Amino acid sequence: MGISRREFLTRVGHAGGYAATFATMQSLGLMEMKGQRTKPMPVAPGLGKGTKLVVLGGGIGGLVTAYEAYKLGYDVTLLEARDRPGGRNWSGRKGTVIEFVDGTKQPIDWEEGNYQNLGPARLPSTHWTMLNYCRELKVPLEVEINTSRSTLLQNDKANGGVPVVQRKAMNDTRGRVSELLSKCVAQGALDTELSAEDRERMKEFLTTYGPLDKTGKYLGSDRAGLKVTPGAGDQTEVIETPQDMHMLLDESFWGGLLYEEAWDWQATMMQPVGGMDRIPYAFAKALGSIVHYNSPVTEIRRADHGVKISYLDNGAPKEIEAAYCVVAMPFSILKKIPNDFSPEVKTVINGSTMANSYKMPWEAPRFWETDFNIYGGLSFLAQGPSPVWYPSANLMAETGIIVGGYTDEYSQPGFAALSIKEKLEQSKLSIEKLHPGCSKLLRKGIFMGWAHVKWNEGSWIRSYGGGPQGYETMIKADGPFYFAGDTISNIVGWQEGAALSARRAVNMIGERTKSAHLAPPAASPETRA
Amino acid sequence: MGISRREFLTRVGHAGGYAATFATMQSLGLMEMKGQRTKPMPVAPGLGKGTKLVVLGGGIGGLVTAYEAYKLGYDVTLLEARDRPGGRNWSGRKGTVIEFVDGTKQPIDWEEGNYQNLGPARLPSTHWTMLNYCRELKVPLEVEINTSRSTLLQNDKANGGVPVVQRKAMNDTRGRVSELLSKCVAQGALDTELSAEDRERMKEFLTTYGPLDKTGKYLGSDRAGLKVTPGAGDQTEVIETPQDMHMLLDESFWGGLLYEEAWDWQATMMQPVGGMDRIPYAFAKALGSIVHYNSPVTEIRRADHGVKISYLDNGAPKEIEAAYCVVAMPFSILKKIPNDFSPEVKTVINGSTMANSYKMPWEAPRFWETDFNIYGGLSFLAQGPSPVWYPSANLMAETGIIVGGYTDEYSQPGFAALSIKEKLEQSKLSIEKLHPGCSKLLRKGIFMGWAHVKWNEGSWIRSYGGGPQGYETMIKADGPFYFAGDTISNIVGWQEGAALSARRAVNMIGERTKSAHLAPPAASPETRA
Repeated sequence: MGISRREFLTRVGHAGGYAATFATMQSLGLMEMKGQRTKPMPVAPGLGKGTKLVVLGGGIGGLVTAYEAYKLGYDVTLLEARDRPGGRNWSGRKGTVIEFVDGTKQPIDWEEGNYQNLGPARLPSTHWTMLNYCRELKVPLEVEINTSRSTLLQNDKANGGVPVVQRKAMNDTRGRVSELLSKCVAQGALDTELSAEDRERMKEFLTTYGPLDKTGKYLGSDRAGLKVTPGAGDQTEVIETPQDMHMLLDESFWGGLLYEEAWDWQATMMQPVGGMDRIPYAFAKALGSIVHYNSPVTEIRRADHGVKISYLDNGAPKEIEAAYCVVAMPFSILKKIPNDFSPEVKTVINGSTMANSYKMPWEAPRFWETDFNIYGGLSFLAQGPSPVWYPSANLMAETGIIVGGYTDEYSQPGFAALSIKEKLEQSKLSIEKLHPGCSKLLRKGIFMGWAHVKWNEGSWIRSYGGGPQGYETMIKADGPFYFAGDTISNIVGWQEGAALSARRAVNMIGERTKSAHLAPPAASPETRA
Repeated sequence: MGISRREFLTRVGHAGGYAATFATMQSLGLMEMKGQRTKPMPVAPGLGKGTKLVVLGGGIGGLVTAYEAYKLGYDVTLLEARDRPGGRNWSGRKGTVIEFVDGTKQPIDWEEGNYQNLGPARLPSTHWTMLNYCRELKVPLEVEINTSRSTLLQNDKANGGVPVVQRKAMNDTRGRVSELLSKCVAQGALDTELSAEDRERMKEFLTTYGPLDKTGKYLGSDRAGLKVTPGAGDQTEVIETPQDMHMLLDESFWGGLLYEEAWDWQATMMQPVGGMDRIPYAFAKALGSIVHYNSPVTEIRRADHGVKISYLDNGAPKEIEAAYCVVAMPFSILKKIPNDFSPEVKTVINGSTMANSYKMPWEAPRFWETDFNIYGGLSFLAQGPSPVWYPSANLMAETGIIVGGYTDEYSQPGFAALSIKEKLEQSKLSIEKLHPGCSKLLRKGIFMGWAHVKWNEGSWIRSYGGGPQGYETMIKADGPFYFAGDTISNIVGWQEGAALSARRAVNMIGERTKSAHLAPPAASPETRA
């Protein structure tokens, strides 16, 4: 590896200035780390000195493993099959080529500055582990707009197929619900539930919450939209007629109404400026020569004192031995590699299935901004590819990237079997339904289906082999093998899960290293390695 | 003025490249303008040629007036008392000195990159006139975070004074409301209101909307917050115990719950990168020598063929005559200037009162981000200066500007009479209540009260003189005088109102110019001027 502790600090310092060095020193345990709920690694720095660790896979799970283990003094090697770090954390931009396992190639040729995060695209403000890494590695963040009241909800079978603006659905729904509850309170239906005082407070509360008029009626509100906006001269606002409850009860509107309130999806959400892949590149920069690219793993074996990993180094067969191995690869790929995992682990991996999420990004002039006042956020459709996702980056630029569909290929019957061209036609249709006349402005569309991507063959884990105990099996050490990645967490599909699983694996290895140090030398794998 | 139409286009082109020239050509009527609901000026370009127009005041109202009138060919002069454009659109940063009419000076000495918009700080995505000017003048925008679920609601008299996280108040409230309504539906209280089918749909809907369990109970939800977050290994999420309805009904929580749904406050909101004053500076750049700084108006008179305005040009008395005058100054200042307005207009201006809004910004390390996961947004307090407003700019920088109180000086009894030092102490206390132990990190606090600022003496109009007809009087021409600014609109306190009133004034003058062109030369003021 050849990077001394001080060189490491200097390199990080160079990348991000004094503050980055300071942050790195903090997380090495040299100073107390301050950051909401990112617990410092409980094991002591320097602990790993002289112990070899090999990490398989350079996605977020593998990168965080290598980063934390290196900080503890381990002699780390990370093997990555691709020529880039990040795994699914991948941003498509001019020059990116999306290659499918069947040989299909989709080169991206969008304008300079336009990009699409093909994998993870959001950092919730509650994913403090990832946010703290961004802080530590000085990755500049900006807002990812997940909530926007100007976005649309559309259903072919409701409102004659005409999209409803989210502010209207959202606020008319609350208004109608409040009106009905107010009526119940007035009729005495809650006299046993609420005290007389609370009933009075409830009536007052609903007047604001709805909002309702003094007689308890919901007559619409500026919150739900204006037919005429207030202006200069004698132009005063006219509130839109409220939607009736019958239509609001249509199932197709509910999901779109409340997605933004899910724990992982609540504002404020963020994204790195310029693309999510700024994160893996920042890790890779800090790790330097620890990361070996173009190094696909061909065999995963146990050795006398740890593990022996065979891989190709730019095509040439090589081997590496280490005391421990952290496996941070998708099960879909792992199951094809000859290995010495325990029968229980093999069962879980071999029996696992993957989800097949896709995104279909297009380049276009920003009609959603100029003609619809939509600045970021998501619109939902009841039929066809959905949601439509508007870019948060470079607001008001001439062009931008709009996603026409982000879901699983199997969530829509027959969709998976379509050709790329047919899939893109469906994507266009979704955008056309929301923005009539605008689909002709879409160009250079890409179908990015993770099921078809080499080294992934799936977007994230759908089910573990071995039944309900499958997950439990994977979170334990399998001899010298430890597993990491979002698959080995309860936050599947999020970078936070990958990072937490990596930190956990490093801690487990750290505890074992500590025990080994305390035990007689002969029993310690790394002193014998 | 000496700027030819082509020079004007070239200058704009220079500032923003081809696209800006293109946009300017569009709004000059040379090409069709495409932009949600910004109507092109109905009067014809070139119409104003040879007609003199003087604009009083270089806030947004005055700047838009000058900009649009110049595009129509008018010979425009704008007089501004200050040495900068923008009026209340003012961003405080290192070097800014806030001077009060009593002589108090507060110089700002924050770190490079830190700033606070002292006046307007938000551009809603529905304020398309202002957004289109940003597009046209190439002012880069970023998200202004108005909604964030990690922000806080605090009331000394509720929950023992401990702040409640907004996600909890918001989502527990909806959960409790849904639970009560579900109970009513089950008890038959709405049998006459809803059909049997709709009752079934309502029950299902509430299950998602609440969310409720199958028996109609609200048991909390990840939306309202987690006691334990999902993690790696066996760490699974544990939902927080829901707040009871009695506490949620406390009046102090309602306002904070729904501010984000008001038409003007809904996501997505934006701000210019680097400060709101990027907008007036962009207008000023496009207008060039049309804008005269350090030129306070001393007399506003009618002349034989229009108006005669006396002013000081860097202290030296001067006069300017013009066919028309657009007055875009605060009434608080206008009432002190000798003028020839009609008795009706004088009554409205002289009898007007102003609001006294203030902001108290502080510089601090970003404890709200590192320790509270709050990235932008507003926290509300029931007592003392409120809300506390977190910065949207430069997320994750080392330091930032936090506002401890943004409201009217008279909304809190006794507050207006306090000294600046005492006011800042109260501001500190508000922040301390939300973020215990953190107020000691606050430094370089500023009390920015618009009531005390020279050339403003008030934040915006509170009431017009002359009773209910006051506003009606001001939106009409008073001979050669026209009025502009947010005061002359139904969107008081917003730049959009100022811009719309300015466009309206220019159109009115345009129509009159058109009539004058059609009438015999002798009757046209500008041909005689």
